[in-house]
Amino acid sequence: MIIQIRRAERKDCPGLLQLVRELAEYEKAPQEVNISLEQFEEGGFGPDPVWWAFTAEVDGNLAGFALYYIRFSTWKGKQMYLEDILVSERFRGNGIGSKLFERLMEECREKGFEYMNWQVLDWNSPAIRFYEKFNGVSRNDEWLNYKLKIN
Amino acid sequence: MIIQIRRAERKDCPGLLQLVRELAEYEKAPQEVNISLEQFEEGGFGPDPVWWAFTAEVDGNLAGFALYYIRFSTWKGKQMYLEDILVSERFRGNGIGSKLFERLMEECREKGFEYMNWQVLDWNSPAIRFYEKFNGVSRNDEWLNYKLKIN
Repeated sequence: MIIQIRRAERKDCPGLLQLVRELAEYEKAPQEVNISLEQFEEGGFGPDPVWWAFTAEVDGNLAGFALYYIRFSTWKGKQMYLEDILVSERFRGNGIGSKLFERLMEECREKGFEYMNWQVLDWNSPAIRFYEKFNGVSRNDEWLNYKLKIN
Repeated sequence: MIIQIRRAERKDCPGLLQLVRELAEYEKAPQEVNISLEQFEEGGFGPDPVWWAFTAEVDGNLAGFALYYIRFSTWKGKQMYLEDILVSERFRGNGIGSKLFERLMEECREKGFEYMNWQVLDWNSPAIRFYEKFNGVSRNDEWLNYKLKIN
């Protein structure tokens, strides 16, 4: 089994979006994915990109990905916000998630992001176990999440 | 009292950073603000901006601001992430915060951001009361926050 991690390109978008839908199924909210392929592509590869990603391929097949955007902290400056990290079900248990996570840490070092931030659903124990394997990871329960639907 | 809301410009950065420090005092973490003015300016007005803000002026004096970045949701596309909204202590009670918040909602409509997202510290009751005044605001306690210090 050859696992290859590389930066995502525009041509990967249809496959990435398919994996996003798979993650939404897992998170019990498939009806919540209403982004179009065009919006997805424009966000990553339009004139002002707002996301960057890495893909994991196993023997040439897309097996997973990690996608981030830049969070701006007025206290610390630019940080990585990890929006999604996912390994497709049939490829799990091969260390692919860790390889993606390590590639993200490398990206932080290259770009000078002091922190990597992310969220996890409180019932998602496999993900929580995965994240807590990494040295230095810390959880903060002081912040409440709010949203407002505008359009 | 004349309250004017306008888009922040590069020249506002020193004043904004001073207000950021004031907010950090209020949040009991003044030592956590270690961004430099140069990093702050570059983030908003460098070749690839990652934040945008509105200022509130009272009779020509900087009284508050709201600062956001673009969150990319793989389910919904580009969203507004409200990082900071702040009215300086001596200017509170004049509706300045609401004017800033309404300007942010207008920005969402103009830019096509479907959602506005933010977080609030669980002990910050005045802020929680402020946010919950707005129709349609919803809180979600299912997500845990994680971070990892890299550099």
